[in-house]
Amino acid sequence: MLGASGYAGAIAAMLVHRHPFFELAHVTARSEAGSRLDDIHPRTRVPLELESWDPDAQSDVDAALVCWPHRVAAPAVAALRERGVRVVDLSADFRLRDRGIYEDWYGPHGAPALFGQGVYGLPELHRDAIAGADLVANPGCYPTAALLALAPLARAGLIGDVVIDAKSGVSGAGREPTSATHFISADENMTPYKVDRHRHTPEIEQELAGLGAPVTITFTPHLVPLAQGELVSCYVTPARGAGPDEVAQLYDDAYAREPWVELRNGPPGVLEVRDTNYCRISVHADPRTGRILAFASIDNLWKGAASQALQNLALMFGRDEREGLA
Amino acid sequence: MLGASGYAGAIAAMLVHRHPFFELAHVTARSEAGSRLDDIHPRTRVPLELESWDPDAQSDVDAALVCWPHRVAAPAVAALRERGVRVVDLSADFRLRDRGIYEDWYGPHGAPALFGQGVYGLPELHRDAIAGADLVANPGCYPTAALLALAPLARAGLIGDVVIDAKSGVSGAGREPTSATHFISADENMTPYKVDRHRHTPEIEQELAGLGAPVTITFTPHLVPLAQGELVSCYVTPARGAGPDEVAQLYDDAYAREPWVELRNGPPGVLEVRDTNYCRISVHADPRTGRILAFASIDNLWKGAASQALQNLALMFGRDEREGLA
Amino acid sequence: MLGASGYAGAIAAMLVHRHPFFELAHVTARSEAGSRLDDIHPRTRVPLELESWDPDAQSDVDAALVCWPHRVAAPAVAALRERGVRVVDLSADFRLRDRGIYEDWYGPHGAPALFGQGVYGLPELHRDAIAGADLVANPGCYPTAALLALAPLARAGLIGDVVIDAKSGVSGAGREPTSATHFISADENMTPYKVDRHRHTPEIEQELAGLGAPVTITFTPHLVPLAQGELVSCYVTPARGAGPDEVAQLYDDAYAREPWVELRNGPPGVLEVRDTNYCRISVHADPRTGRILAFASIDNLWKGAASQALQNLALMFGRDEREGLA
Amino acid sequence: MLGASGYAGAIAAMLVHRHPFFELAHVTARSEAGSRLDDIHPRTRVPLELESWDPDAQSDVDAALVCWPHRVAAPAVAALRERGVRVVDLSADFRLRDRGIYEDWYGPHGAPALFGQGVYGLPELHRDAIAGADLVANPGCYPTAALLALAPLARAGLIGDVVIDAKSGVSGAGREPTSATHFISADENMTPYKVDRHRHTPEIEQELAGLGAPVTITFTPHLVPLAQGELVSCYVTPARGAGPDEVAQLYDDAYAREPWVELRNGPPGVLEVRDTNYCRISVHADPRTGRILAFASIDNLWKGAASQALQNLALMFGRDEREGLA
Repeated sequence: MLGASGYAGAIAAMLVHRHPFFELAHVTARSEAGSRLDDIHPRTRVPLELESWDPDAQSDVDAALVCWPHRVAAPAVAALRERGVRVVDLSADFRLRDRGIYEDWYGPHGAPALFGQGVYGLPELHRDAIAGADLVANPGCYPTAALLALAPLARAGLIGDVVIDAKSGVSGAGREPTSATHFISADENMTPYKVDRHRHTPEIEQELAGLGAPVTITFTPHLVPLAQGELVSCYVTPARGAGPDEVAQLYDDAYAREPWVELRNGPPGVLEVRDTNYCRISVHADPRTGRILAFASIDNLWKGAASQALQNLALMFGRDEREGLA
Repeated sequence: MLGASGYAGAIAAMLVHRHPFFELAHVTARSEAGSRLDDIHPRTRVPLELESWDPDAQSDVDAALVCWPHRVAAPAVAALRERGVRVVDLSADFRLRDRGIYEDWYGPHGAPALFGQGVYGLPELHRDAIAGADLVANPGCYPTAALLALAPLARAGLIGDVVIDAKSGVSGAGREPTSATHFISADENMTPYKVDRHRHTPEIEQELAGLGAPVTITFTPHLVPLAQGELVSCYVTPARGAGPDEVAQLYDDAYAREPWVELRNGPPGVLEVRDTNYCRISVHADPRTGRILAFASIDNLWKGAASQALQNLALMFGRDEREGLA
Repeated sequence: MLGASGYAGAIAAMLVHRHPFFELAHVTARSEAGSRLDDIHPRTRVPLELESWDPDAQSDVDAALVCWPHRVAAPAVAALRERGVRVVDLSADFRLRDRGIYEDWYGPHGAPALFGQGVYGLPELHRDAIAGADLVANPGCYPTAALLALAPLARAGLIGDVVIDAKSGVSGAGREPTSATHFISADENMTPYKVDRHRHTPEIEQELAGLGAPVTITFTPHLVPLAQGELVSCYVTPARGAGPDEVAQLYDDAYAREPWVELRNGPPGVLEVRDTNYCRISVHADPRTGRILAFASIDNLWKGAASQALQNLALMFGRDEREGLA
Repeated sequence: MLGASGYAGAIAAMLVHRHPFFELAHVTARSEAGSRLDDIHPRTRVPLELESWDPDAQSDVDAALVCWPHRVAAPAVAALRERGVRVVDLSADFRLRDRGIYEDWYGPHGAPALFGQGVYGLPELHRDAIAGADLVANPGCYPTAALLALAPLARAGLIGDVVIDAKSGVSGAGREPTSATHFISADENMTPYKVDRHRHTPEIEQELAGLGAPVTITFTPHLVPLAQGELVSCYVTPARGAGPDEVAQLYDDAYAREPWVELRNGPPGVLEVRDTNYCRISVHADPRTGRILAFASIDNLWKGAASQALQNLALMFGRDEREGLA
């Protein structure tokens, strides 16, 4: 796998390493090649040496997980696909289907010929397409939580308008030491960031539209002082009246048989899903305001990135999507 | 002052004790009388013994701060007023002006004859009324932040609808040890609570209506893992179009000369206002969605309770409202 | 298992529930019987109902883990042994072999006939005895870390005197909400506690003596603001001179083949062993002072309690002690 | 003052800015000149622009606080002294009196002519010398706490041997974003660091020797997950027997009249001294082991650096050392 030195990459490497079916062949890093992964990330206990990426030498594999940043990922994915390697890409490069929108939010694409060829890898929405795919675009962390929170309402035509207030732990800001990720800046603090221009916005809008809810969303993320965990609070102005029973039934129909979604009566906390592939959801129709409130919590590095990549990989290879994640 | 053993009460006692003009005569506690305040709350360094409350023995004062819970506070306030003592009450008992609404959210009132007699103690909105008042109802922490964030828009008739997503540190849950305030429950966690039924809702609606915005709000608080600090993220659907310049001007007009409000271009963090009476505000008109986003951060125990009580007390006694708080 | 509602008990129940060989038959709780374990401790995802303990009805098992407090545990252990159930007891009741010392530190024993019958369940020291035992006394968390840090020096006769400065996360204080475990008390704080009289002292001294180091230790624990994790810093005044190479060799001989001990050159952090059965150790012979410094980190709820209980259970039943813990 | 962009420097600037007697003339920064201090450190609310340091242009002052790193500080201090400016230097450059020891631990000195000319600025030990000094060397944070904890025993000839186990919050590691100060590294973690070679060691030994205790200390610092706060746990093997009463009397004699030392019966927490110039101390003579345990807590950025610098400055100018710090 490519990019094992970041937080999500390291967890993905650990999950493949422990997996009963998959085998971890290579771990690469752009600037820390030569180090052992378990020296950089002791908790993984993966005793492999990080290699520089070499598509020719490392294509002796059936599949690759690419944990590189957007725009850098695309050419690597193209090189892997040319060599017949199936790919789960954790960057944003293959999530969007409208190239103009991609370029507005991210700039020029690094592998135009492949643009739009990825299957959007949210298994609960696109399980069948993932099963046959050679290139899966693993969703962003916020879209994972927001789309799972909103999908039942979107499909039922209930989303007239929606405000998504999202909160994430500090690992979402990446492993690079910066002023913002310094303990003294983050500890005992919380703050909105990238107000009205976070790049996960078009991804959420694209998928909501695909579900039947072509809305312009208001999406604002916040940084909170914890390591891993993400909570989205979705405030839906419904397109038509809908009572608590109808709303509850929609969520039950959608998720009662999903192995990685837990419906709850009370609001979810992020600690309950820490270090797991679970998404916890609760929904409340408020008679006083007429609004529908949907909350979802995930671990941003697991269901929001690494373990969802494994879930996708399992589906691509016809395996049980719970395998290696329980 | 009454109720000095709680978190806000202890800070209020400390601020009075250090104050250049006011003098701290008595500190009371309901269950910890006999202890010294600086043993229970070392950071206050107030070397006074907590007394049981006795209105006759302790009315040798010009003013009292009452830091008791709602419904318990009202009879104590009544007893103090009967003895000619001016009062800042930090409970909810004198904030609302519609008794039916009070009873819906809080139950029967503990001093019906005084109901509705308090001046709502948000100095930035009601400075003149506070100056002449004998009974000031100190606002709730969430209403303080939310109203300061929204007042300029409310006055300008710009609030068509609003979602308020609020986040608070754990001190907001009070000093009682509970399962929710246990370190192991709160650390590395965050969760919505009292979804669609938090008692600060009618207080915010009452004051917004008074400013010209009679809206039914959606208000949801969240618990985050830090000690003191509160952030409100307000998502306003404007009643009419309004550009960034007009919006910025409204906030500048409202707050440029306020000693305890800091307008910022970027989003506010809670650490920047920790242990202070400041409220930090930023506002963003989003051209993509047409929404106006207003953020405000305060220290829930200071501007959200104790230091605002001192600010009110200063105004009541004709003093500079910055005195003893800088 | 008995006492699944506490922190260590819940993890022990989770580990048995997920175990490939053992099967979880019953979970009991003294005050929360009737609730489901995964409602009280969502992270366990154990969907069993907590029962009141009934030795007759629940003795249809081969083994029991007892996670009750000292003095309450002993009679329950006795009842289980009478019914032929093999027991790992996580309390202090069967760790000490000198009844006078037990009574000095804990008071009267709850099952005197069984006193001293437990095998001290630190597998790295007593693996063979555990394998044949019917009653294993699972060590305290501090003794686990301290004894693993000091055993190679003790066996070599190198401990002339030792100061053990220990630091633990807040879960060590138990699940009962108290003033000390309130988030506002523990967050951003640290403090020594039970100075010169912590009950793990005689347990450490007993085992050191058994290894050949009959010393009176100085042991002081400290509370630090994190959830799980324990670090012991041991300052040994050696009985005779010993160079870095000799000391390093002692640790290598002791631990190179241990599956759950990780020797490191640099000082260990507690995060590296979080949620695992590992103990990380480093040792430094300081030429400037002549002292030997040994550091060990564990997860106080795992290797310090629950997962070590599983490790012992595996040994008692002739299984691989890594099973179900990797 | 020089170096106002670091954590201690910013607090020192804030304290001077708010001070009733001193006036803040200049604030300098090496890499962030041109920014306003309250943009970089909002909590200071010091509305001054950071300047590049220019000894000629900025020597229109009576005194300077130098908050630069060791070796860089010395030449700046020399330049200031040449211009007649009195200096409190927060670096290590003028704390040691043996140049060989300085060079062993720090390397070549940056202003050899001034070496050894500083008065060691721990007011509780050297108040009179500080009063007449032109160059005061502000102590390190660990030496401040350790020396205040140990001074009464040192003076009484009671220290035969001592182990100092110290714990500090993350601000002690400085403002530079590094892998170690990243929130994800520090949060929920703790670890020893600079085992047996921390540079505060010779400083503590020098001052203990000056008090009559020429011992070789064992000193090990640990990083704990909190922002500000430092705790030293000192384990003294007494040179002769000493009972609890004698020991308590020594501390009472030393500190009962000290404005910034608080003696406590129970062990001190760091939160109790957060954001203050106080040092809290407790001492315990353990009859079981014969050891004397002394604990001290300070805020590493305040009494351990910035506020102690102000305390020294006040003494140098004949002011009350409590002024501006209460």
